[in-house]
Amino acid sequence: MFDRATFLPARVVSQTPPAPPLGDFPPETFAHHGHELIDWITRYLREIESHPVLAQTTPGAIAGALPLQAPAHAEPIDDILRDVHHVLMPGITHWQHPGFFGYFSITASVPGMLAELMATALNVNGMIWATSPAATELEQVTVRWLAQLLGLEGEWFGQLTDTASTSTLLALAAAREADPSLDVRGRGLAGRTDLPRLRVYCSELAHSSVDKAVMVLGLGHENLVKIPVDDVFRMRTDVLEARIAEDRAAGYRPLAVVATAGTTGVASVDPVPAIAAITAREGLWLHVDAAYAGAVAVAPELRGVLAGVEGADSLVVNPHKWLFTPVGCSALWVRRPDALRRAFTLVPEYLRTTSGAGLDYHDVGYQLGRPFRALKLWMVLRAFGAEGLAERIRAHNAMARDFAARITATPDWSVVAPVDFSLVCVRYAPAGMSPTDADELNRRILARVNASGAVLLSHTSVHDRIVLRLAIGNVRTTAAHVEQAYQALLDAAAVERSS
Amino acid sequence: MFDRATFLPARVVSQTPPAPPLGDFPPETFAHHGHELIDWITRYLREIESHPVLAQTTPGAIAGALPLQAPAHAEPIDDILRDVHHVLMPGITHWQHPGFFGYFSITASVPGMLAELMATALNVNGMIWATSPAATELEQVTVRWLAQLLGLEGEWFGQLTDTASTSTLLALAAAREADPSLDVRGRGLAGRTDLPRLRVYCSELAHSSVDKAVMVLGLGHENLVKIPVDDVFRMRTDVLEARIAEDRAAGYRPLAVVATAGTTGVASVDPVPAIAAITAREGLWLHVDAAYAGAVAVAPELRGVLAGVEGADSLVVNPHKWLFTPVGCSALWVRRPDALRRAFTLVPEYLRTTSGAGLDYHDVGYQLGRPFRALKLWMVLRAFGAEGLAERIRAHNAMARDFAARITATPDWSVVAPVDFSLVCVRYAPAGMSPTDADELNRRILARVNASGAVLLSHTSVHDRIVLRLAIGNVRTTAAHVEQAYQALLDAAAVERSS
Repeated sequence: MFDRATFLPARVVSQTPPAPPLGDFPPETFAHHGHELIDWITRYLREIESHPVLAQTTPGAIAGALPLQAPAHAEPIDDILRDVHHVLMPGITHWQHPGFFGYFSITASVPGMLAELMATALNVNGMIWATSPAATELEQVTVRWLAQLLGLEGEWFGQLTDTASTSTLLALAAAREADPSLDVRGRGLAGRTDLPRLRVYCSELAHSSVDKAVMVLGLGHENLVKIPVDDVFRMRTDVLEARIAEDRAAGYRPLAVVATAGTTGVASVDPVPAIAAITAREGLWLHVDAAYAGAVAVAPELRGVLAGVEGADSLVVNPHKWLFTPVGCSALWVRRPDALRRAFTLVPEYLRTTSGAGLDYHDVGYQLGRPFRALKLWMVLRAFGAEGLAERIRAHNAMARDFAARITATPDWSVVAPVDFSLVCVRYAPAGMSPTDADELNRRILARVNASGAVLLSHTSVHDRIVLRLAIGNVRTTAAHVEQAYQALLDAAAVERSS
Repeated sequence: MFDRATFLPARVVSQTPPAPPLGDFPPETFAHHGHELIDWITRYLREIESHPVLAQTTPGAIAGALPLQAPAHAEPIDDILRDVHHVLMPGITHWQHPGFFGYFSITASVPGMLAELMATALNVNGMIWATSPAATELEQVTVRWLAQLLGLEGEWFGQLTDTASTSTLLALAAAREADPSLDVRGRGLAGRTDLPRLRVYCSELAHSSVDKAVMVLGLGHENLVKIPVDDVFRMRTDVLEARIAEDRAAGYRPLAVVATAGTTGVASVDPVPAIAAITAREGLWLHVDAAYAGAVAVAPELRGVLAGVEGADSLVVNPHKWLFTPVGCSALWVRRPDALRRAFTLVPEYLRTTSGAGLDYHDVGYQLGRPFRALKLWMVLRAFGAEGLAERIRAHNAMARDFAARITATPDWSVVAPVDFSLVCVRYAPAGMSPTDADELNRRILARVNASGAVLLSHTSVHDRIVLRLAIGNVRTTAAHVEQAYQALLDAAAVERSS
């Protein structure tokens, strides 16, 4: 365990001066505590494995340890930092831990953290080109670089958003505006007799951000049509075609299809080439959600993950997932920036060409505030290089395959979905046990494993059965950590089965 | 000028090791460059005034100085940092500069930066309580503290988002869901015969984020009704009432009113108490956008800015604007979390009470990814204390009043809007000059002042005339910087008038 008692002991005798009457703290105070925190973080990185991955706390414990009343008077920075260490740290779930295998695991890598430190100090808002040309232009360069690394061909207009949720929202907003004659931006959706219900299609395994985008955009959750998947969890294009035809016959207007390359549950890849053929024929917008798995395309031999994307209208890949970039950094590309701009611009047409300046990113999204997200991605791409990133992804995939092979060879355990990337879905089901009992047993195994603190897994539902997900993606994860997860699962199964 | 030639010279002889074949860079590399960057930032803060505020570059110059091709091989971190310094820094507009008076000026203060450094290192995602209890609970504590400091009474449910754009989008999404019988989340807006067009009202000076939210939500830009302002730029409630009545008579359904406390253009405050009386009577959602000016309520004698907010349904105040917190940190409170949750939750009702854990913030917004935003606000509130924040805001307001008085006393210059906060709108209009010529002259004065690099102002349009905005808000700004802006305006006017 990270030694909480010894954090910053020297500060008790050498506190930095309190807040001055006006102005900021002096640069010397930043230097003093900044160096202190660099040491603290260095130690955190060195000793990360001494923390339990999952916070070992109970609801309300952290809040209960903090004052009810806001501070009237300035407090010494030393005291606040000490509270971070002693009060907050026990409530942190350590996403930086190499034993973090939950959800999709992520990393703030060293180059990413260094870049974010600089971005924090600059504190620019790149809402328009002039408010920090370097932020806008580095973003353009970086999304172009990343497009090259992923093997994207042709013209794509890219930007970095905070989350895949935002990227998908922007993409579907553009889809809604792709046919200018609908004029949704101007006239809205409600109370119009010329507008049927609009429909969006995705597989039943698509991410919840698609549901939320459809709800936010006023399309209605019931107009998100969930297409069933085949036996390897890929969207069934025969059903997609049939549903589109049925909907047209029933008076709906199909608008867009969201294909997923790497579903959250099992990392399956929808058949994008076949889907693209359908969307092209039907005149629908195709958005590809490759937030997690798209990263593997940095390895040339793994570019198949994005097969068919040349027929898509938009694509999201999250560098803050599997490209070792601190949160938040989601890359959104569109083929048709005109539609994206139409969805969001408030700049009158006649002013657009006369601005004389560079791209104003506020014009292609709804958030006016835009932090300097490109810096961390740029630093990561350069510090690891394309080959370095590809090697790390290959290594994660190999660890996942090895883990899957061991599970498969273990009695009563099974791998329940193909392992194409770094996600392995497993289930423990002793012979003769009812599926419902096995569900309960898998839940208990998960709780026990996560309570151990050594590793963290999450769960999902496959064919209405509980399965446990091991998602490799933290850059510091090694085969030994995966082995530890394997042993933890077996140990927990043994205990829970006999309890 | 910050000496670009001398950045990191020692590194030429003592480069840190390149990226290892797998894994992250070692903690020692983080320590090495982290300490280096703390020194770099310290120097940046000390010498910030040696930079021109506005980036002195031309479109494409930064991008043109960077390689067209993404890096195949890992590059030394030293080289990348040197490029930040030499290539990117000339393209940075320095929002941290105390001579930054454009838009609304902001600060990443020392405590805010220190907190963000820790948050970057922890890299948690607070999407649900368990994925970092401390992030969720500190957010709850911090928004409660901030509500206390602003004098909010009664029950408010708070959260921190990335931008006021997001906060207002969430608020209006909740407004759209406030009447569950409409079931917009489920059925959507299009193709329904039971749903008239929905209308939202704001003043003609409301922020563009309101326009964008209405567009995103599918309500249609034409259904955002811009209410004219009175002679001191406040929404005319007589017109608001009349428009609501007309719209009802014409078959529209009024949904919400957005009142602004501190408009972007001139910092006017809409008559929220009178508006609240109307929204209460009409059954409309009232959202108060106090993103900028709401901060003044930390000074008890200035709480009038939020008068009437007790009748509102939602409120946004941005700590990353005038509370010295690094971007992005926008506080959104709602009175009716039920409506917000209905707009966004995907958790089935029957699971909600049985989760047994704390609040899951993903349930009350559309972004699943949630960085640890509370840490920086919490650190700022404690390090400055309520009194310290209030003193700084009072000082900024006093500087603005002094500047306004000097402008008023200067021939041919005038202050064109009341100065209630830290924003002063001025115009140069020599006697006998046509308004159109004066517009052009003010544009040239602005360009000259900003090109000087000493200060940065922005402009807006008041009664269709160009006016120059001086917005005080950077925590390091002193009366001397404002005096410098005054002199720069006079000098530029003298040159431009005679040119």
